[in-house]
Amino acid sequence: MFKKILIANRGEIALRVIRTCREMGIKTVAVYSTADAESLHVRFADEAVCIGPPPSNLSYLKISNIIAAAEITNADAIHPGYGFLAENAKFSKICAEHDIKFIGASPEMIDKMGDKATAKATMRAAGVPCVPGSEGILESFEQAEKIAEDMGYPVMLKATAGGGGKGMRAVWKKEDLKKAWDSARQEAGAAFGNDGMYMEKLIEEPRHIEIQVVGDSSGKACHLSERDCSVQRRHQKLTEETPSPFMTDKLRKQMGDAAVKAAEYIQYEGAGTVEFLVDKHRSFYFMEMNTRIQVEHPITEQVIDYDLIREQILVAAGVPISGKNYTPQLHSIECRINAEDPYNDFRPSPGKITNLHAPGGHGVRIDTHVYSGYVIPPNYDSMIAKLITTAQTREEAISKMKRALDEFVIEGVKTTIPFHRQLMDEPDYVAGNYTTKFMETFKMKPIE
Amino acid sequence: MFKKILIANRGEIALRVIRTCREMGIKTVAVYSTADAESLHVRFADEAVCIGPPPSNLSYLKISNIIAAAEITNADAIHPGYGFLAENAKFSKICAEHDIKFIGASPEMIDKMGDKATAKATMRAAGVPCVPGSEGILESFEQAEKIAEDMGYPVMLKATAGGGGKGMRAVWKKEDLKKAWDSARQEAGAAFGNDGMYMEKLIEEPRHIEIQVVGDSSGKACHLSERDCSVQRRHQKLTEETPSPFMTDKLRKQMGDAAVKAAEYIQYEGAGTVEFLVDKHRSFYFMEMNTRIQVEHPITEQVIDYDLIREQILVAAGVPISGKNYTPQLHSIECRINAEDPYNDFRPSPGKITNLHAPGGHGVRIDTHVYSGYVIPPNYDSMIAKLITTAQTREEAISKMKRALDEFVIEGVKTTIPFHRQLMDEPDYVAGNYTTKFMETFKMKPIE
Repeated sequence: MFKKILIANRGEIALRVIRTCREMGIKTVAVYSTADAESLHVRFADEAVCIGPPPSNLSYLKISNIIAAAEITNADAIHPGYGFLAENAKFSKICAEHDIKFIGASPEMIDKMGDKATAKATMRAAGVPCVPGSEGILESFEQAEKIAEDMGYPVMLKATAGGGGKGMRAVWKKEDLKKAWDSARQEAGAAFGNDGMYMEKLIEEPRHIEIQVVGDSSGKACHLSERDCSVQRRHQKLTEETPSPFMTDKLRKQMGDAAVKAAEYIQYEGAGTVEFLVDKHRSFYFMEMNTRIQVEHPITEQVIDYDLIREQILVAAGVPISGKNYTPQLHSIECRINAEDPYNDFRPSPGKITNLHAPGGHGVRIDTHVYSGYVIPPNYDSMIAKLITTAQTREEAISKMKRALDEFVIEGVKTTIPFHRQLMDEPDYVAGNYTTKFMETFKMKPIE
Repeated sequence: MFKKILIANRGEIALRVIRTCREMGIKTVAVYSTADAESLHVRFADEAVCIGPPPSNLSYLKISNIIAAAEITNADAIHPGYGFLAENAKFSKICAEHDIKFIGASPEMIDKMGDKATAKATMRAAGVPCVPGSEGILESFEQAEKIAEDMGYPVMLKATAGGGGKGMRAVWKKEDLKKAWDSARQEAGAAFGNDGMYMEKLIEEPRHIEIQVVGDSSGKACHLSERDCSVQRRHQKLTEETPSPFMTDKLRKQMGDAAVKAAEYIQYEGAGTVEFLVDKHRSFYFMEMNTRIQVEHPITEQVIDYDLIREQILVAAGVPISGKNYTPQLHSIECRINAEDPYNDFRPSPGKITNLHAPGGHGVRIDTHVYSGYVIPPNYDSMIAKLITTAQTREEAISKMKRALDEFVIEGVKTTIPFHRQLMDEPDYVAGNYTTKFMETFKMKPIE
């Protein structure tokens, strides 16, 4: 087993990893920028090394400084958390060259899954369903017509150089294709100087449902069921739950099998997440694979009753996994508490927390690095706490979340607590009736 | 279902009950003495009524004031928590007379289980093993000799008026009985003016192991396995765990069956605990039944995954129980954090909490009513928090507890955190090798 792990991260995930290391009797090294000198991850680690000034590219992303910190402190492994260098193939490679175990994916695997086209091709080869469409740029309208016919309507035309919805058209029937093709090409040409188009099947009422997998060095993998992360704002997840209210036993088996197949095909080692889009017909399509721990991993831990960070460390140390697939027997929800003002377009609200009272009791878990008196630096992401409730049913987990949100006092900065509190009363959310489009129409009720 | 529940208690248990009521959509009424005006149970309840000055007999034990508060606020049920009026037959009766549902045992049941001799006789009739011994005062030495012969040595001679160990003798073989009889009678006569003696079987290496039961109004009961509460100081439990490290599947079945038999025999309704002494041969003997929720109920909740306060409320409202007995699949430990100085004979340390940082993360639960700035009044019991850790194995639960205790910061008062931290490293505790005598020889290591 490792003797000393350096955590190349900050905030709640750094603290999260330190906690598990302490429980496993492994020494820890925190790294920190000058903005984080007063952070709990610095306080609770056995050693701490300052790696630079506040900007991430000069500290948490500065590979040479992190490797130097590991060498100075004799750390034999590095846990990258999520974000920052967690999916950086170069970092993973440099760790290996310095004989430091990177607790994450190999450089090859990160490269393979980091590039979308390569990842999709790999998944297709593994037999995992991907969103059907043209392989690359459409050569002619006739080709577009044929592909659309083959895979069935509705389809989506997209500009290869596209972004921000420009040069994008949803087409619901054959008769409309020509008009959409012409106008999309014209728009793309005007906007990007490039009118190349490709086509994908349009995913109706898409849900973002991901499968947690764990693989070991023998090439064996298992899945720990799903997380529904459809409640997103500008591709940022706001709240997650497991099981998904949209899930069926049959779909879980299909998606779980696909995710395990994907992981075993690429001989995936460690904890990873296979993200899928699921349409209203319960067809599912590979989106991407994250070769790291996810922010929302606690809800899975709550329903499987074990520690995923511990599992990552064990697998990295060569311990084989049990290989058992899990089906959740409980329901767990996570709300990401961000220092943002939900009444003001979720604008970041850094500053000093002047008063903090965290909820507790039955079925409540909190993962946070903040405390009364803590100053939230403006340099990093705005998440300050994860509030997780777990109960026998979804209804009870929601009731528990409402009660916990009501008890949660954070003063001095604006937070997303009022947003989550309203969400938990929103009829469509309560009914489990939401897609990735949910936040496009959600409006905060005014403060009473 | 009840519309409004008054909680006739204070501290963490009042908050605990309020939390569940909120989750169930039931309104709550807090009662408080003037010493508790700033308490969280007052803050989080929907309504709050001051019921008197700090001394308990003028507030939390003042039945007339509590009933008046319930009537003023139109509460249709009262939850008594533990301690105070939780096992007061008169209070239970007065509630019934006022048409307020007492969420606890009926007056008859409290009377039956409240008097030790009646409780024992009832349990014997139900076929539950009790500590064998003379039924009442021994009439002669010859009778003592015969009873000892019948039940087997070792035996314990006890003064009927006794206390503090006076007039008490352990006798390991027949030859020693006469001498012990004479000296114990002489000592008792001198100390109490009453040399009446009775005899019980001596329990070798006793463990305090209790079985959680729940019964419903149809007379059906089930058990939720055991809690080992052997680590006690002057009959005050300090830490508890489930499962007991001393437990076997066979013993759990025997004790569970006995506890269910006991509950069903007396048609017990609600959550209750049957306490047993278990000797080194794994023979078990009924000690007493607590007709209320226990302080240590969270460890059971953690391993059965449901809310016992909710279950109490449901049963009181007439909802039938599932009737399923539970066997723990996880391991959970509770440490009672008291405002006491473990380096100074556990002397109470009331006062103001100047700084508080509670641990969190995977497998950690905290039930507490205190916060930074809270003033612990000297009037009530000194428990300020319950720290509960849960994991797949006992070893991991202990590691988690050590990590959580290390993270727990309470400044301004002395607490038992250092005691628990040392306990978790004590070889006999770690080996699960402890009896109710454990604390008699435990010594705090000096502060480094």
